[in-house]
Amino acid sequence: MSASSSAPLRVALLGCGVVGSSVARLLVEHSGDLAARIGAPFELVGIAVRRLGRDRSDVPVDPSLFTTDAAALVSRADIVVEVIGGIEPTRDLLLSAMASGASVVSANKALLAEDGPTLYAASDRHGVDLYYEAAVAGAIPILRPIRDSLAGDRITKVIGIVNGTTNFVLDKMDSTGAGFAETVEVAQSLGYAEADPTADVEGFDAAAKAAILASLAFHTRVDIHQVHREGITEVTAADIAAADEMGAVVKLLAICERVSRPEGEAVSVRVHPAMIPRTHPLGSVRDAFNAVFVEADAAGELMFYGRGAGGDPTASAILGDVVEVARHRVNGGRGAGESAYADLPVLPMGAASTRYHISLDVADRPGVLAAVAATFAEHDVSIETVRQRPGAPGESGDDEAAGATLVVVTHRAPDAALSATVEALGALDTVREVVSVMRVEGE
Amino acid sequence: MSASSSAPLRVALLGCGVVGSSVARLLVEHSGDLAARIGAPFELVGIAVRRLGRDRSDVPVDPSLFTTDAAALVSRADIVVEVIGGIEPTRDLLLSAMASGASVVSANKALLAEDGPTLYAASDRHGVDLYYEAAVAGAIPILRPIRDSLAGDRITKVIGIVNGTTNFVLDKMDSTGAGFAETVEVAQSLGYAEADPTADVEGFDAAAKAAILASLAFHTRVDIHQVHREGITEVTAADIAAADEMGAVVKLLAICERVSRPEGEAVSVRVHPAMIPRTHPLGSVRDAFNAVFVEADAAGELMFYGRGAGGDPTASAILGDVVEVARHRVNGGRGAGESAYADLPVLPMGAASTRYHISLDVADRPGVLAAVAATFAEHDVSIETVRQRPGAPGESGDDEAAGATLVVVTHRAPDAALSATVEALGALDTVREVVSVMRVEGE
Ligand SMILES: NC(=O)c1ccc[n+]([C@@H]2O[C@H](COP(=O)([O-])OP(=O)(O)OC[C@H]3O[C@@H](n4cnc5c(N)ncnc54)[C@H](OP(=O)(O)O)[C@@H]3O)[C@@H](O)[C@H]2O)c1
Ligand SMILES: NC(=O)c1ccc[n+]([C@@H]2O[C@H](COP(=O)([O-])OP(=O)(O)OC[C@H]3O[C@@H](n4cnc5c(N)ncnc54)[C@H](OP(=O)(O)O)[C@@H]3O)[C@@H](O)[C@H]2O)c1
Repeated sequence: MSASSSAPLRVALLGCGVVGSSVARLLVEHSGDLAARIGAPFELVGIAVRRLGRDRSDVPVDPSLFTTDAAALVSRADIVVEVIGGIEPTRDLLLSAMASGASVVSANKALLAEDGPTLYAASDRHGVDLYYEAAVAGAIPILRPIRDSLAGDRITKVIGIVNGTTNFVLDKMDSTGAGFAETVEVAQSLGYAEADPTADVEGFDAAAKAAILASLAFHTRVDIHQVHREGITEVTAADIAAADEMGAVVKLLAICERVSRPEGEAVSVRVHPAMIPRTHPLGSVRDAFNAVFVEADAAGELMFYGRGAGGDPTASAILGDVVEVARHRVNGGRGAGESAYADLPVLPMGAASTRYHISLDVADRPGVLAAVAATFAEHDVSIETVRQRPGAPGESGDDEAAGATLVVVTHRAPDAALSATVEALGALDTVREVVSVMRVEGE
Repeated sequence: MSASSSAPLRVALLGCGVVGSSVARLLVEHSGDLAARIGAPFELVGIAVRRLGRDRSDVPVDPSLFTTDAAALVSRADIVVEVIGGIEPTRDLLLSAMASGASVVSANKALLAEDGPTLYAASDRHGVDLYYEAAVAGAIPILRPIRDSLAGDRITKVIGIVNGTTNFVLDKMDSTGAGFAETVEVAQSLGYAEADPTADVEGFDAAAKAAILASLAFHTRVDIHQVHREGITEVTAADIAAADEMGAVVKLLAICERVSRPEGEAVSVRVHPAMIPRTHPLGSVRDAFNAVFVEADAAGELMFYGRGAGGDPTASAILGDVVEVARHRVNGGRGAGESAYADLPVLPMGAASTRYHISLDVADRPGVLAAVAATFAEHDVSIETVRQRPGAPGESGDDEAAGATLVVVTHRAPDAALSATVEALGALDTVREVVSVMRVEGE
């Protein structure tokens, strides 16, 4: 089929908000280049929105293209670009798009992490493409590299900074010394955090992305409910300072790890804040940038860095997918479908192997270190370093003995053993307070 | 076609040196995973080498697979993996492989940069795939992201550290203060530089990669002879020290730039050492690592980082390509062919827009700065900063007047104007020596 002789490919856009308006504008502005790269012309046949009345003067298209009837629109498209978000009615729209033979490009991490297999099954059944590069880390090409470029390798670990809001907040806490609550307010005033920042700061957004990354990296179905999730709301200025003292920064990490066990391989998928050395490639990711660090047997260490959100960066990833699925319609063929053949078990958090950094406020008297060390030993947790520092007088003052700060960094151990250790430490009468507990990554 | 019912895909390996032996080993070790990901089993049907007698005990295959008859081998393969290198007989072998219907995966940057269009034309004519992710930046997925992920965007700049040997040498010069010649010897003794390091240190290897990157990024044919090339043999410890003083490091960069001119767009493609700020994402790429920095209109700034060479990392990229072309043979379809529709002119170096950092040893007397500044003005080059520092006594000592060092950093200007300025500065009688001239990138 040549560009001149073929009927234009019909593209339907579902949603015209932050991302959708960028997609529409770039489709129009770059239409010549896109057609040349696809090898065929295309036509934007409609844009589904919720509110017809909203001002859309920034979107340079014929206003008659806007419609609230998304269901009718998908039935007359070759390619459906979905940037509405959410689970319903989006899932139904995408299933009916595929049923009527359209290929789908989506940025919807929530839906993919909730119910990817249903969408994949539909794309297989109807022989159409389902692409979603924009769903993880915005403009950064990461899904295609994991799915295709590394398809001949054995990925052992993926660690991502995949949420720009939380990275912005943690980076500002690091540079200013301020606490979580006030920094979130700053982020909100600058447009880096939403009025309701729950999805970001509680780690839901990162958990959806972790599920998608793990599924692709390990050829195993992982959904968001299998991802252990801790947000950054409990991260204190003291935690950040403790990290700084050991040359580290605190980042919210999406960690997908292949685990070798005597009873066979498994995967651990989790989102939590962790200390990471400033010298680690992820340690210097500032502001709202995203980055994904990948370890594979043959490739070694790789890192992918760029903008994780925003209208244009996200639209860049979407349009790359649009060109590829359009090429398939012109030249035949299909992208890789779901690959879940490995079907590895997903471990509970307690079985994940992690390292802890623990700061304790202890009584400054002989035997304290021995008691603390014994607690670690009882839980089979081995200590990498201990640092003891005088100071930290008892808060209630006068007759209480002078205190000291004890900072312990452990070797890797099962997370359950580490958290049981922390609980037992808190119960020791020589430990006045567990000041900070944070996992450590990136050794 | 299902994995169980189909005849195995026949894979032929041409070459079994550094890269080929890793490819063979990984094909064997990961055969189960690879077959699952392809959706069909495959068979390694032969390995072409030059010397049958060589010890290959590290390659876990049936020794009867080795052959010196590469031509016969390619005629009985579905997928030909080429890791011989060089122009001939490789080109002929690949053309006959494609003519007999095989898809090709190659790591041969020299051949692709010399004569990519001939290979592309053959792949189009015979409807087979031609993939070469491993040819640029080893394990780092960079060609697929540029060709596919960014296919909907407008790339404006690609700057790569794409040669590990030169990055290792420059990084060591930076950390030790040593000169070029002795550092190359260290690199050789550690296996980071070959006995004859010409292809690396003179920038030929990087120039081939620049041609490949520019062709894909700008949809324009660029061959290695159109790439302006300067190596690192003239980089001195003084250059490195001068960079350090302004918070920069010297890197050998492969720069591919889209240039807007009144008469239409063009591209500039060049390889040369340049100072780049330590805070730039490329500034912290140490040792023999590679990284490619990409700027695109919608995506913004992206960076890709990892190992650029070595048997296993290169084999990782090759096997990713093998899986993808194999999937095409199982499911139908083909990867994107050559895209050269934009056909932009490639500018000569003199027309490239660059910035210079110039250190001058000048006589310490009134009027020197005025004369120097006038020389820049005459060539229409505007100065960003000037720093003057006493010291640098005349080399011949006694009766010569005390000298001073003048460090000038320019704004962007045509490279021809900058180099004419440097020549004119050298002719000023107040300038005793042009101590260091280096381009500056990454503002
Ligand atoms: N924003 C980012 O930086 C970013 C980055 C990566 C991925 N994503 C993903 O991209 C998707 C869209 O995000 P966004 O930020 O662009 O959201 P948004 O600004 O809230 O836009 C949503 C759009 O969907 C329309 N819409 C809502 N319900 C609809 C319905 N039932 N039928 C038809 N249209 C409906 C809205 O119409 P009205 O205009 O009439 O309200 C609006 O145009 C989400 O899945 C998000 O996770 C976003
Ligand atoms: N090395 C890297 O890190 C790296 C990274 C990226 C890309 N590459 C590219 O990968 C390719 C191979 O590099 P390499 O380092 O693996 O080279 P190498 O170690 O020199 O191996 C070359 C192989 O080709 C065989 N060979 C040479 N001429 C032949 C002929 N006429 N017919 C059949 N076999 C022949 C040799 O046979 P014998 O074993 O009998 O000598 C040897 O096995 C080159 O294009 C290179 O640019 C290499």
